Formats: sequence, C-alpha cells, structure tokens
Amino acid sequence: MITPPRIAITMGDPAGVGPEVCLHLLADKQIARECTPILFGDASILQRVARATNLPLPELTLSQAQFQSNPSAVLETCIIDLKTLAPDAVQPGITSAVTGRAGYTYVDRAIDAALAGQVAAVSTAPLNKEAMHAAGINFPGHTEIFAARTNAARSCMMQYSEEITCTFVTVHVGYREVPGLLTKERILDVIELTAAALKKLRSREPKIVVCGLNPHAGEHGLFGDREEERLIIPAIEAARERGINIEGPLPPDTAFLPAKRKATDAFVCMYHDQGHIPVKALAFDSAVNTTLGLPIIRTSVDHGTACDIAWQGKANPSSLFSAVRLALRLISS
Amino acid sequence: MITPPRIAITMGDPAGVGPEVCLHLLADKQIARECTPILFGDASILQRVARATNLPLPELTLSQAQFQSNPSAVLETCIIDLKTLAPDAVQPGITSAVTGRAGYTYVDRAIDAALAGQVAAVSTAPLNKEAMHAAGINFPGHTEIFAARTNAARSCMMQYSEEITCTFVTVHVGYREVPGLLTKERILDVIELTAAALKKLRSREPKIVVCGLNPHAGEHGLFGDREEERLIIPAIEAARERGINIEGPLPPDTAFLPAKRKATDAFVCMYHDQGHIPVKALAFDSAVNTTLGLPIIRTSVDHGTACDIAWQGKANPSSLFSAVRLALRLISS
Repeated sequence: MITPPRIAITMGDPAGVGPEVCLHLLADKQIARECTPILFGDASILQRVARATNLPLPELTLSQAQFQSNPSAVLETCIIDLKTLAPDAVQPGITSAVTGRAGYTYVDRAIDAALAGQVAAVSTAPLNKEAMHAAGINFPGHTEIFAARTNAARSCMMQYSEEITCTFVTVHVGYREVPGLLTKERILDVIELTAAALKKLRSREPKIVVCGLNPHAGEHGLFGDREEERLIIPAIEAARERGINIEGPLPPDTAFLPAKRKATDAFVCMYHDQGHIPVKALAFDSAVNTTLGLPIIRTSVDHGTACDIAWQGKANPSSLFSAVRLALRLISS
Repeated sequence: MITPPRIAITMGDPAGVGPEVCLHLLADKQIARECTPILFGDASILQRVARATNLPLPELTLSQAQFQSNPSAVLETCIIDLKTLAPDAVQPGITSAVTGRAGYTYVDRAIDAALAGQVAAVSTAPLNKEAMHAAGINFPGHTEIFAARTNAARSCMMQYSEEITCTFVTVHVGYREVPGLLTKERILDVIELTAAALKKLRSREPKIVVCGLNPHAGEHGLFGDREEERLIIPAIEAARERGINIEGPLPPDTAFLPAKRKATDAFVCMYHDQGHIPVKALAFDSAVNTTLGLPIIRTSVDHGTACDIAWQGKANPSSLFSAVRLALRLISS
C-alpha cells in the first residue's frame, strides 16, 4: 500500500476565516484518504476556533522539531504547533501586526518543510496583507513569498478552476505600474510556465489564449501605446515558434465569452483584475490559486481573510478542499 | 388606440453583421406590435443581404426627404434609403473607408431625426472603428458620436442586462491613459447619471456599487497611487450626501460575485474592460449598450461587426432586439 502524500496546510491569518476552513479540511474523512494534512499553525487558536464553531480538532499535535525528526512516521492528520501566539493575543476578525507575523510564520515554516522534502506540497489559507505590512513583512501576497523563499528564477500566479483558468504577467501592483512591467521576455516566461502546467494537468498539448492590455486589444494601435504590437505579439510569436498552441492578443472583454472559454485551457492575463474579475464572477467557490515555476508545489484558497465572518462557522471551506486536490493532481502528474 | 413609437434603427457597417440583424428585427411581428422600426441604411445593401441570407425585406422604402415631410404618417416598418453606396461598392466582411463613412452617415442622419422629434429613440447596429478612422471620422465609438452630435454636457456609456449592469467613467482610451482621466467630478457625474437611469428603469431608488481602480481597491494605499482615497471615495461621499444609495470603492474582482450582483442595480466602473469583461462573460447574448445623459434615447447592440460571419445568416440578432426593448422601456419610464 502506498502512503498518501503529506500536504502542509498553513492556517492563514489567525484572526480571519483561515483556522475554521482548515478545521473543516482536517475533519474530512475523504481528504484523509487522499492525503495526510499537516497543519502549520497555533494549536491554541485552533482550540478556540473549534470551540466557537463546534468543529472537531485533530487528535495529534506535534512540535515542529518532533515532526522534523521523522516526518515519514506521521501517517495521520496532525497539527504542527508553532506556538507563535499567546493564547489570548487574537480577537476574531481583528488583524494586527501580531496576526500578520503569525500568518507569515506558518507559511515560512511550511516552505522549509517543502524544501526539505518533509511534505509533498503546501496549500495555504488566506493571509491579510495589511497585517503583514504592519509587522514589517512587505510581501504583497503568497505568490511573492514563495518566489522569494525558493529563489525561483521565474514564476507566476495561476488561478485554476474547471470553468476558467488564468495566469498573470503582473499581479499585486498598482494599476499605473502595469505597462512599465510588461516586457516580451516576462510575457514569454508566463506563456511557457502556463503551457507547461496545463500540459501536466491535461496530459496533452494545451490551447493558450493571451489577452491584450488595451480595450479591444488596442485595435491595431487605435488605443494605447502599441503594447500589443511592441511586446505581446512578439512574445506570442516566440512561443508559437517553440511549439505552443497559442492565440492572441485577444480583446480582453471577448476573450472570456462562453464558447472561447470552452475552447481554451488557460488565459494569460496582463494584470490582476483582467483575470481575477472573470475567475471570481464565474468560479468563485471553486477557484484555486497556485504559483507556477517554483521548485515546490504550492496551492492556495482563492479568497481573503473575510474578517467580517471570522470564527463564526459561516465560511465556505470548498476553496481549500479544491486547493488541496489541485496540489494532489500536480504531485501525481 | 395609441400609435406605437417610431424607433430609428441604424444599419451599422454595411460589410458586417449589422444588415442581417436589422433584417431579423424588421421581419419580427412581435417587434412590429411594440414599435415602428425605421431603418436608416442603404436599400441596395439590404437587398443583397436579404438574398444572401434568405431573410425578408420590408415592403416600404422611403427617401429621408419623404420621411421628414410627414413622419407621423409612417405607421409601418420602413427603410429610409440614404443611398450612400453604389450597389456593388461593398463586399461581405471587408470593411473600408467607404463602409466606415456609410455606417457613420446612418448614425448621423438618425441623430438628426431624433433631435427633430421624428423618432422616439435610436438603436444602433455595430460600426467598425478602423473603417471609420480610414474615412477620417475619428470617433472611437457610438458613445462619443452621440455625445458630440447632441452637445451633451455630461454623458456616459451603460451596458445593461438583467444579470449585470455597468456604467463607465472612461471607455475608449488606452490602458495607460485611464488614471489621468479620473477626477472626482467625472466620477460623481457618472454616479449621478447611473442612479438617475436605474431609478427610471427600476421605479425605485437603486443600489449603486463603485469599483476601485487598483487591485483590491488599493488596500488602503498598498497598491497604486491612492486613486481610491484621492478621487473615488470623495465622489462616493458626495453622491451619498445627495441621497444616492451607494457602496464602494469595492475590490474590482469581488464586486461581481453572484451575491453582490444580485444586490446591486448597477456598477460604476473606472475603465472599459473592468466592466466589459464581466458583462460579456455573464450576459453576452443579452447585454445592450446605451448612452446616459443625452437629450435623446440611444441604445445599441453589445457586439461588433463580426466580419468573419457577415452576410451568412449566422449572426444572432438577440442583442438588437434587447436594444430596441430597452429603448422602449426608457421611452415609457
């Protein structure tokens, strides 16, 4: 019998909905047959959230040192108690420098475990960026933390769902900064990462669509600064020469029509909202975030900390379930 | 018995799908009970398209002078033959300076008819912007033609559908130009035009949502140039002081989630693709374009000239039907 893979789950910002969606996952019998979830978090927070939401706690809790001493001996769902927080340091829904630092620490330790081969992948619950920044940790999101911690030469965010999948040339930057960050090389990198990931997931050559930057993809220079002609088209042509089945740049608004979605394995988007708007409008509950180009496998929920409903048992855990299942597909493909 | 209103229909670029979607409309018995369609176009083109697609032609054709002499005597569907084109000047799917000028002329004459009270509204089939530009007519779209020709002090585009409705602070400009065009005054104008239009359509106070410009609506200044704090929030506060039921700025990607769409009458968007992406992804066949703030009522299809399928009888006319029906609702409300 093959041992199911160990998957590190990070608890997310302790003041948000991360702890409760993790408890849902840890309690799920079907998930426990598919993998062994290893939760990186604070046991004291999980105990409080379990009481507040009536969700069960796993029986096994280990220190990180205990886990590291013999990870392959861990055959059941467990909590790695990182003890970053005093038991009463957190109030539900109230993020702070303290919760920001704790949330970051869970991710940091999970990356250590993945780089050391102690877990096969990391699936992350949501962080709160303002809380992280308050703690002096200036990453805009998980994507950038994983890229920096793993020294990835090139990487990009992917939002994956059965309905629509998008990858991103730029992500967490202001609207104004996007055009200055587009280069032929970066666009080609993202196209190649996208094509390689979808080939693994589909087990065949995928069809990739690239969106333009400007309305109507610039209409041959009528709108914009010819970013399509100067940067995007050369990247598409280079990708085609490398054998990638690719189309574009398409007008961003018609790229996501139902017939086009059906015929496309992934859309390469120039900026955050170009892809996040259709993914969230069409696949809110089922979309998963992942980072392509890393030496480790990382997936994430596609929602935020939702502090307004934190610790109330109202949060829908399906995005975390989808994140873990995408990680399992990426491990086995 | 009340005479149904006369609605001017413009034929659109003659090389595109405009002529055939107009013929579908002119042949529809239910539409003919709701209004009297008056098609501004070229009879020679309509005859060729009718032959190519097996669609019927209306029996009545008039010159513009004949129509103007006594418009209220026109009680049945008719073609206003503007004779802008030689019969063989157009090939299906091939736009040019000639087709661009013709398409513009239909709109120009229909606006004259509306301003003179000869028709109650104008519903437009698609123009081809490159063809118009080739003809030296440098409007980026219908919205701007109607605003200029009617000397509207303030106006904005609205995309309307039962699923989702968006209005636009900027429309046909390059990606880079958007931030420089955002002012508190312009955003407030669009909010007020939106609230007034939706109040007419819903017969109650509408709920308006305003999107941010930056990812996550800037996350309190983490991304972008504080456009939310400097421009968008002051406009929202001014609108609220004027009694408008308004919320925002929301992160653009979560603004369009299903539950939020259901609770929102219209979304005020900062740029073209912010609203066009979700409208086309969610309501492609049924969305209608209209221009708010004009002295006349104008609605339009929400699709382009689709030259790849022009004159083949494949074009779906439902967006033009929806455009005419929205015009009728705006007339009667």
